[in-house]
Amino acid sequence: MIESSLTLKNPTRLTYGMVGGGEGSFIGDVHRKAAAFDGKTDLVCGCFSQDEQKTLDTGLGLGIPPSRLYKNYVDMAREEGARENRIDFVVIVTPNVTHYPIAKAFLENGFHVVCDKPVTVTSAEAAELEKLAREKNLFFCVTYTYTGYPMVKHAREMIRQGVLGEIRFVNAEYPQDWLSTLLEASGQKQAAWRSDPARTGASNCVGDIGSHIENMISYLTGFKIKRLCARLDTMVEGRILDDNASIMVDYDNGSKGLYWSSQIAVGHDNDFRVRIYGSKASIEWSQENPNYLKVSYLGKPTETLSRGRDELSVHAGTYPRIPSGHPEGYYEAFANIYKTFVTMLIKKKEGETPTEGDLDFPGIGDGRQGVVFIERCVESSRRGAIWVDF
Amino acid sequence: MIESSLTLKNPTRLTYGMVGGGEGSFIGDVHRKAAAFDGKTDLVCGCFSQDEQKTLDTGLGLGIPPSRLYKNYVDMAREEGARENRIDFVVIVTPNVTHYPIAKAFLENGFHVVCDKPVTVTSAEAAELEKLAREKNLFFCVTYTYTGYPMVKHAREMIRQGVLGEIRFVNAEYPQDWLSTLLEASGQKQAAWRSDPARTGASNCVGDIGSHIENMISYLTGFKIKRLCARLDTMVEGRILDDNASIMVDYDNGSKGLYWSSQIAVGHDNDFRVRIYGSKASIEWSQENPNYLKVSYLGKPTETLSRGRDELSVHAGTYPRIPSGHPEGYYEAFANIYKTFVTMLIKKKEGETPTEGDLDFPGIGDGRQGVVFIERCVESSRRGAIWVDF
Amino acid sequence: MIESSLTLKNPTRLTYGMVGGGEGSFIGDVHRKAAAFDGKTDLVCGCFSQDEQKTLDTGLGLGIPPSRLYKNYVDMAREEGARENRIDFVVIVTPNVTHYPIAKAFLENGFHVVCDKPVTVTSAEAAELEKLAREKNLFFCVTYTYTGYPMVKHAREMIRQGVLGEIRFVNAEYPQDWLSTLLEASGQKQAAWRSDPARTGASNCVGDIGSHIENMISYLTGFKIKRLCARLDTMVEGRILDDNASIMVDYDNGSKGLYWSSQIAVGHDNDFRVRIYGSKASIEWSQENPNYLKVSYLGKPTETLSRGRDELSVHAGTYPRIPSGHPEGYYEAFANIYKTFVTMLIKKKEGETPTEGDLDFPGIGDGRQGVVFIERCVESSRRGAIWVDF
Amino acid sequence: MIESSLTLKNPTRLTYGMVGGGEGSFIGDVHRKAAAFDGKTDLVCGCFSQDEQKTLDTGLGLGIPPSRLYKNYVDMAREEGARENRIDFVVIVTPNVTHYPIAKAFLENGFHVVCDKPVTVTSAEAAELEKLAREKNLFFCVTYTYTGYPMVKHAREMIRQGVLGEIRFVNAEYPQDWLSTLLEASGQKQAAWRSDPARTGASNCVGDIGSHIENMISYLTGFKIKRLCARLDTMVEGRILDDNASIMVDYDNGSKGLYWSSQIAVGHDNDFRVRIYGSKASIEWSQENPNYLKVSYLGKPTETLSRGRDELSVHAGTYPRIPSGHPEGYYEAFANIYKTFVTMLIKKKEGETPTEGDLDFPGIGDGRQGVVFIERCVESSRRGAIWVDF
Repeated sequence: MIESSLTLKNPTRLTYGMVGGGEGSFIGDVHRKAAAFDGKTDLVCGCFSQDEQKTLDTGLGLGIPPSRLYKNYVDMAREEGARENRIDFVVIVTPNVTHYPIAKAFLENGFHVVCDKPVTVTSAEAAELEKLAREKNLFFCVTYTYTGYPMVKHAREMIRQGVLGEIRFVNAEYPQDWLSTLLEASGQKQAAWRSDPARTGASNCVGDIGSHIENMISYLTGFKIKRLCARLDTMVEGRILDDNASIMVDYDNGSKGLYWSSQIAVGHDNDFRVRIYGSKASIEWSQENPNYLKVSYLGKPTETLSRGRDELSVHAGTYPRIPSGHPEGYYEAFANIYKTFVTMLIKKKEGETPTEGDLDFPGIGDGRQGVVFIERCVESSRRGAIWVDF
Repeated sequence: MIESSLTLKNPTRLTYGMVGGGEGSFIGDVHRKAAAFDGKTDLVCGCFSQDEQKTLDTGLGLGIPPSRLYKNYVDMAREEGARENRIDFVVIVTPNVTHYPIAKAFLENGFHVVCDKPVTVTSAEAAELEKLAREKNLFFCVTYTYTGYPMVKHAREMIRQGVLGEIRFVNAEYPQDWLSTLLEASGQKQAAWRSDPARTGASNCVGDIGSHIENMISYLTGFKIKRLCARLDTMVEGRILDDNASIMVDYDNGSKGLYWSSQIAVGHDNDFRVRIYGSKASIEWSQENPNYLKVSYLGKPTETLSRGRDELSVHAGTYPRIPSGHPEGYYEAFANIYKTFVTMLIKKKEGETPTEGDLDFPGIGDGRQGVVFIERCVESSRRGAIWVDF
Repeated sequence: MIESSLTLKNPTRLTYGMVGGGEGSFIGDVHRKAAAFDGKTDLVCGCFSQDEQKTLDTGLGLGIPPSRLYKNYVDMAREEGARENRIDFVVIVTPNVTHYPIAKAFLENGFHVVCDKPVTVTSAEAAELEKLAREKNLFFCVTYTYTGYPMVKHAREMIRQGVLGEIRFVNAEYPQDWLSTLLEASGQKQAAWRSDPARTGASNCVGDIGSHIENMISYLTGFKIKRLCARLDTMVEGRILDDNASIMVDYDNGSKGLYWSSQIAVGHDNDFRVRIYGSKASIEWSQENPNYLKVSYLGKPTETLSRGRDELSVHAGTYPRIPSGHPEGYYEAFANIYKTFVTMLIKKKEGETPTEGDLDFPGIGDGRQGVVFIERCVESSRRGAIWVDF
Repeated sequence: MIESSLTLKNPTRLTYGMVGGGEGSFIGDVHRKAAAFDGKTDLVCGCFSQDEQKTLDTGLGLGIPPSRLYKNYVDMAREEGARENRIDFVVIVTPNVTHYPIAKAFLENGFHVVCDKPVTVTSAEAAELEKLAREKNLFFCVTYTYTGYPMVKHAREMIRQGVLGEIRFVNAEYPQDWLSTLLEASGQKQAAWRSDPARTGASNCVGDIGSHIENMISYLTGFKIKRLCARLDTMVEGRILDDNASIMVDYDNGSKGLYWSSQIAVGHDNDFRVRIYGSKASIEWSQENPNYLKVSYLGKPTETLSRGRDELSVHAGTYPRIPSGHPEGYYEAFANIYKTFVTMLIKKKEGETPTEGDLDFPGIGDGRQGVVFIERCVESSRRGAIWVDF
C-alpha cells in the first residue's frame, strides 16, 4: 500500500444511461465501447428494450443493478431526474422514429443527450428539440461518427487555412452492397427497420448513409447548400424505399457538389469516400483506409499524410492515441465523438469554459440540417429529380 | 542467303496517308506509332500542316518522298484518288471543326477513314458522313482509344454473358487537372485549341473527355441513353467553355448512370475510371492501371483479374502482346484500335468476310452518337441543368 | 424499475492488477483499453511506477482506491496473494529486463500472468517461467499483438486446411523508420529504453520487432526453425544495438524463409507484412491494412478477402465486432488477445473445459521460443552472419 | 505536291539485322517493336532461325527480301560485313549459350551489337567480348530492359544528387509464379530453355531475373558488391536448376542489400520492385506500376511522383512520350533502351560526340558484371549458402 502522506486527487468522472441497445443491437454496443474507451464514464442505468426481461439481462450483463433498470424511457427520464446521483447524460440508440419523443423527455428532465442520426424523422421535430435544448441550456450530440477520424479533422483545418485555395468541386460517395438483395424479406434486423418507412422515415439510403455525406461535407467545408437535384432509385424489386441516390448540389458560394450513396453497389463494404477540389490543392479521404489523407497540389508531387507520422494541426493532433502505422479504426473514431463531448461536460462540471475545440462534436443544429437534407432529397426525387431550394 | 527452293509468301500490307499531325502535334505521333506497332502498315503520303515547309520537314523525317507530300487536303484526296498505288486509308488528326470537310473529301474519293474524336462538331455533319460512308461502302473508324484495352474488351464480354446479372447502376468518371489554371492564356497549344469554341465546338470538357465516358459505357453495356440532366461548370475565371461536368443519365431499360468529367480536379492526371454494378456482380476498371480488372461478386471474395495471367474471353485474349506483369499502356491500346481496323481491311482486300471481332473498332455510328451526347449535355446545362431527352 | 419477478443472472467478471504502465507509458494504456474493451474485466490494483506519487496519481485517475496501490511489485504480489478478493490475473508492462523477476513473483503467489514480449531477456529465464507456470497450473499470456487480427486467424486456418498446398517459401518483413536518427540521444523515452542493452537485452531491432515476425510465422504455419543466418546492422552512428536485420531461415521440413526487420527504413510506419507461398496458393497480409487478406491461387484470379464481408473460418469468425468496411485496428487486435485469455479464465472459473479456440492466445512456450530466436540471431550475426542451428 | 523551292533535309536513319527471333519467339518481336518505336531504324536482314524456311517466312513477313535472309549467323556476319550498304548494328536474341559465338562473329566483322541478357554464360566469355568491343571501338548494348523506365532514370538522378542522403539499405525483389509447376515438362518453350542448363547456363532464377536486380541496383546506386551469401532453392520436384533465390549482399562502402527472386511465388506476375533507404529519404519503384515513384522523406509526407505530371531530372525528362496518366509500359521502356543506343549511333555517324546521357544504355561492362553475379550466387549456394567475395 502507498504512503498516506502523498497527495490524493480524484479526477471527475461522468455517469450515463442508455435507451435502446439491448442484446442483438449493433449500435448500442458500439456506443458503450466508445463511451468507455478513455475510461471517463460509467454506464449506470438503462432501458435497453421494450421487453423487460431483455433490459434486465442486458443490464445485469453490464453490471447495472436492477434498481436502475427501467421498464420504459418515460419512467427512466422521470426517476433519474429525481435522483440525487442522477446521470450526467443519456444515450439514445433506438429506431429513428422514436428519437424525438425520447430525446424530448430527457431534455425536459434536464439531461444532456447523445442521440444517433438522423436525429428525427421530420425537420420540425428536430427544430423543436434544438429549441428545447437551447432553452434548457443543455448539450445535444448527434453521433455522425465519421467526423471523429483525426485525418478528417486535419483536412478541415487545411481547408480553413486556405491550403486548398478556393474550393470548386466536391465529389463524395458512400457505396455499400449489403442491400443488393431483398434482405429485409429474410427478417434480418438491420435491414428490416431501415427499409421500413414506419420505423426509419421517408428515406432509407439517403437517410442512413447519404446523410453522412451531407454532414461530412458541411463539417469539412462549412458550405451551405443552396439547391439540390436528387434522383432516388429503388433498384431491388419489392423494396419500398430508396437504395441508391445520385444528388447534384449547388452551394450558396457558387461551388458545386456531386453525391452518390448506394446500398446496392456490389463490392463495396462501407466505402465512404470524400474528395474536395480547390484552386490550389485537393484532398481525398476514405473511411476504409482512415489513417491516411491524400493531398495533391498543383505543381508538386501528391502527398500521403499518415496519422501519427506527419504533423497534424494542433487540434487534430489531440485525437490519435497510438503511433503511426498502428491502425485506428471505427471504434476509435466513435470514441473521439464521445471524448470531445465528455471532456466538454467534465470541463463544464468543473466550472471551466469550453474552447472551440471542446465543442467539436456534431450538435443538434447539424442534426436538424441533416433531416432537412433528407426531406429535400425526397422532395426533389418525388417531383421528377428536379432542382429544389434548400 | 537462303535457298531459292523454299516457298515464298508475301503477306498483304496496307499503306495510308495522314492529314494533320505535323511536328509539335501530340496525337499525330501517337497515331503513327499505333499504326506502325504491328508492322502491317506504311505511311506513304501526307499533308501534315497548313504550312508547306512543316509538311515537308515532317514528311521527310518520316521517310516520305516529296512527291507524296501535299499542300492541302483537297489536293491530297484528289491526287491520291487518281494514283494507281493509292493509299488504303487516310488518318485525320486535325482540330475538331475541320474533321467534317476533310473526311468528306476522302470519302468522296473512295478512301476508308480513321478520324479522331469527336468526329464532327455537329451531329448533322456526323450523320452526313455516316450516310456517305454507307453509300460508298467505306469503313470509318473513330479513335476512341480506351476501348482498345484488353481488359475493357473482357469486361464487355462478361457483361454480355450476364456475369453481372441485370445492370442497375453505372458510375463513370474522367478527372484531369491540367486546366486548373487558365493555361490557354499562356498559349499552350493543346489548351488553346481545346478551349476555343471556334476550333473545338460547343464544349471543352464534355467534348474532350466526357465523350469518352459516353462511348465507353455504350461499348461496355450496349445501353441507349433515354434522357440526361447535365450541369456544365466553368470553374476557371476567363475561360469560355466548360471545364467540369456532372451528368445524370437514365437509360432506356430503366438502369441509371452518373458521369463526372473534369479538367480542374487537382491531383488527377488522366484518371478515367468505370464502375458498373449489376444484380450479381460489379466491375471496376481504371485507365491508369489498365492491365487489371476488379470484379466483385455477391457472396464471394472480390477478384482482381490480371491481363495475361487470368483467362480472358476468346476475343479479348487476342489483344495482349506480352505476358502478364509486363505493363501494356496507352500506345498498345491505341495500337489495338488500328490492329482491328487494319486486320479487317486486309481481310477485305484478300476477299475474306470479316467476323464480328474484326469489326470491333469504334465506327462512324459511335462517333455520331458521341456528338449527339455532347449536344444534349450542352443543351441541358444551358437550360438550367434540366432533363432533356436523348 | 424492473419487476422483481424476472430472472436475475449475474455474469462472471474478472479483476486484475497491473505492474508498470504509469502516466506517460504507451503500452500500459493500450493494455488497459484492450482489457476493458469487451467489458468483462475490472482493473482493481496496481504498482504503476517505481515512483509512489506516480502510482498514486495513475491509480486514482483509474478509479482505484489507495488501499490497492502498491509501492513495489513484491508487496503487491504478496498482499494481493493474501486477499480474499484477490485479483484473477496480473498484467506486466515494464521494461524487458524486469519481466522475469516480476512474473516469477506473481506466479509464485498463484496468479495467472499477462506479460509483454519479449517475455524475458534470456531463454533460461523464459524456460524457468514456463516450468513454474506448468507446475503451478497457471496461464501465462505473452502479448504478441498481431496474431489477434481476425484475418491472421483465418489465414492460419486456411494453411491448416491445406488451401495453400505445401508451403515452400515465407517472406516476412517489418520495417519502421522511427529510429532513422539517433533519437535515443534526445531522451525520447521509447527510443531510450529500447536501444539500451541494460533495459532491453542483447538486441533492439530483432528483439522489438523481428521477434513479431518469428511469432507470426510460427503461429501461421506451425513450422519449426532448423537453422538461421542473421546479419544484424547498426546503421545509425552512435547506436549500440542493431536497427536493421536480414535473416535467412531454414525450417525443419525443408521450407525456407526470409525475414527483414528495420527501424531505419524511411517511409515505413509500422509496416509488418507477411507473405506465404505454397504449391497451390499464397497469402499476403499487411498490418497497416489489417481487415483484408490477399489470396492468390494458381490458375484463378487473385482474391481479396474482406473481414466481415467474406466468410471466415468458424473460429476466426468469432473475433470481428463490427460489419465489414468499418475498420478494426490495433486496439481491437490487442483486445482479441485479452478476449481469448479472459474468456478462457472465465470458463475455467465456471468449471468449464476450455476448447482449442479458447486457448488461442500466445503462451509462455511461444514467449520462450521468441527469446531463443533473438539469441540465435545475435549469435549468428556476431560470428559473421553464419548459419547457426536453432 | 509540295513546292520544289522548299528546303529538303533527309534525317539519318539506321539499318540493322537480327539473329534469332523467328516466329513463336517472344523476345524477338519485342526487340523489333522497340527498335521501330521511334521510327529511326529499319530491319533489313536476318537469320531468324536455324530452320531456313522459318527464317524465310519470318523475314518475308517483315518485308525483308530473300537476298538478305541468311542460313546461319556465320554467313550473315561475313556477307553483311562485305556489303557496301551494310547494317549499322546486329540484334542477338538467341538462347543464352549461343550469345557468345554470335556476338564474337559480328564484332569481328565490325558491327555494333545489341544482345539479350545474360550476355554470356561464363564471365570469361563476357570479358573476352568486352575486350574485343574495346579493341574494335564498337558499341555493345545488353538489353536489361528495366532501366529504360523514365522513373528509374529519375530515381538514379535523385540518388546521385544526394536527395536520399547516405544510402543504408537496399531491398529488391523480383517474384513471378509462372514456374510454380513443372511447366518445362509440358514442353512450353520459354520454360523449356530457361530450365535447361545446356541452353541457359548454371542458373535459371538468378540468371533470368535475379540478374535484373543486380543490374538495376548497380544502375541506381553505382554500388559495387563486396561479398554475397546466396541460398538458391529448387522448390519444384523434377526441376534441375534454381527457381527461388535469397541473397544477402554487402557493398564495398558498408551499405547492405537483400535480394529475393522467385518463379514460384504464386500471385506475382512480373513483380520487380526496388526499395532504397537512405539517411534522409527512401524511394520505392515497382515495374508493374512503372509510371510512379514513391519518395518518402524523414519529417515530411510521403510523395508519389507521376511521370509526366511531376518534374523529372533533365535527362529522365527526355524519355516520356505522352502526357501523365497515359500509361507507358514495358514496350516503351524497351524502346527507351533502343532510343538511347540508336541516338548515340546516329550522333556518331554524323560526327557528333555523344554526351553522358547518350551513353545511358547498359553496356558490355554491365553485362559482364551480371554474369559474375550469377556465378558468385551459384558458387555461394553450392558451398552451403556461405559468404563469397565478389
